[in-house]
Amino acid sequence: MALISSPQNRQLKLYRSLEKRKYREELGLIPLEGQRIVGDVIKRGIFPEFILLRADIALSQLPFSGLLPADTVVYSVENKIFDRIAFTKTPQGVLAVCKRPRLPLSAVFAKKPAFILVADSIQDPGNLGTMIRSAAAAGAGGVVLLPGTVDATNPKAMRASMGAYFALPVVEATFAELQQALQLHGIDLVLADKSAALDYNDFDWTQPVAVVIGNEGSGISQKVKEAATTMVMIPMQQAVESLNAAIAMSVLFFEASRQRRLQ
Amino acid sequence: MALISSPQNRQLKLYRSLEKRKYREELGLIPLEGQRIVGDVIKRGIFPEFILLRADIALSQLPFSGLLPADTVVYSVENKIFDRIAFTKTPQGVLAVCKRPRLPLSAVFAKKPAFILVADSIQDPGNLGTMIRSAAAAGAGGVVLLPGTVDATNPKAMRASMGAYFALPVVEATFAELQQALQLHGIDLVLADKSAALDYNDFDWTQPVAVVIGNEGSGISQKVKEAATTMVMIPMQQAVESLNAAIAMSVLFFEASRQRRLQ
Repeated sequence: MALISSPQNRQLKLYRSLEKRKYREELGLIPLEGQRIVGDVIKRGIFPEFILLRADIALSQLPFSGLLPADTVVYSVENKIFDRIAFTKTPQGVLAVCKRPRLPLSAVFAKKPAFILVADSIQDPGNLGTMIRSAAAAGAGGVVLLPGTVDATNPKAMRASMGAYFALPVVEATFAELQQALQLHGIDLVLADKSAALDYNDFDWTQPVAVVIGNEGSGISQKVKEAATTMVMIPMQQAVESLNAAIAMSVLFFEASRQRRLQ
Repeated sequence: MALISSPQNRQLKLYRSLEKRKYREELGLIPLEGQRIVGDVIKRGIFPEFILLRADIALSQLPFSGLLPADTVVYSVENKIFDRIAFTKTPQGVLAVCKRPRLPLSAVFAKKPAFILVADSIQDPGNLGTMIRSAAAAGAGGVVLLPGTVDATNPKAMRASMGAYFALPVVEATFAELQQALQLHGIDLVLADKSAALDYNDFDWTQPVAVVIGNEGSGISQKVKEAATTMVMIPMQQAVESLNAAIAMSVLFFEASRQRRLQ
């Protein structure tokens, strides 16, 4: 295991560059910070391109060390330097870099009947990561990120998704591309709106669906709203006007999951 | 309307002191920051003890100004001073202080059949506020905060609850007090655990229930776990091990709401 003692080291510079979406996309790499997320990703069979360990941590101390291939590239980084390169506050001595999957839009349609999350301008990375985690748990077949949505490989989004990013296809597409594919596959575009007449519990979620969730502040963009083929509402009591976006999404997806498990 | 131009002003000092839980409790007051939350609270018929406006904002510009009683105390605060006293980054020129309700534990049992959220050591104020908002929307009768849970009047919690804090009773109690009351009223203590055998969709949520949600990191404390009379699990797919605490809570509460609306 090589010891890195210079902040000018090439691997460290590469790692630092991955704070920017532009470089994560160009290089096709994702930074992972902390024992929890690195372990979650490895348990899914995704092995890091390389691992950076704080010098006071031994690989054998880590709960996932036994799962790593023998040829895994591991660098030990001097404590002070390590502490400066992490993007998050508590990397727990472990940083890793893994390949970013490059999947076509069609990947989200592989699971049938279709059950897709469409994120429209979600800007909070924690919210997006939480939604990806909920979508995977509810059995969704994929996630489509429309323009204006934060990058799902953002370190905060990765942390909130707890590895679920690798559990299902997460792809970027324009709304025109998505709409064409939905029409081709005969998939309903569903959105939740408090003015809708249809109670989400009365909708048949066993049919092919793509569910769009908009930005919490500004909601769903006008062209997406106009293209929706089904509008549902979540009945709310005690004069509550809206739910947090990730909460509303999860309530819808677990109702769909319930109906699909009943079949 | 008085103009405040000294940072030593008594009202400003009072406001600043409310950043601390200790003073919010001792003084029985809650600070509110931003047009959205101040408006949400006023729409619920809770009127501020006083309002602090940034000097460049006129009361008549605010969407809720027409709802305020004529004798509302409003201070105008010089811009530079205003910007220093706010706890949050974007107070949008409006701060307010309102009374903190002092309710007994019994208040959460008024709604029948009982439907109560029990927060056990929830430490993230945003998470707690989101849970209070979801509980109110799902029709819960109240929220009990066990020791170790963040104060629900924390500015971040208030913002995330979007005024729902005032929609239902939110009370603090020890677990011994809660347990005694649950036994007295014959209310089931329900918790979600991935090792449970009972699918949450197969549980009868129309009976009186108190649902306990634990800290995302450490989970539910041992004594609370041992006292639970029902354990349910949320079926999760694609190897997702857990949901965000506020998401799991909302999925359970909206299933309860669905079953109760069917009755």
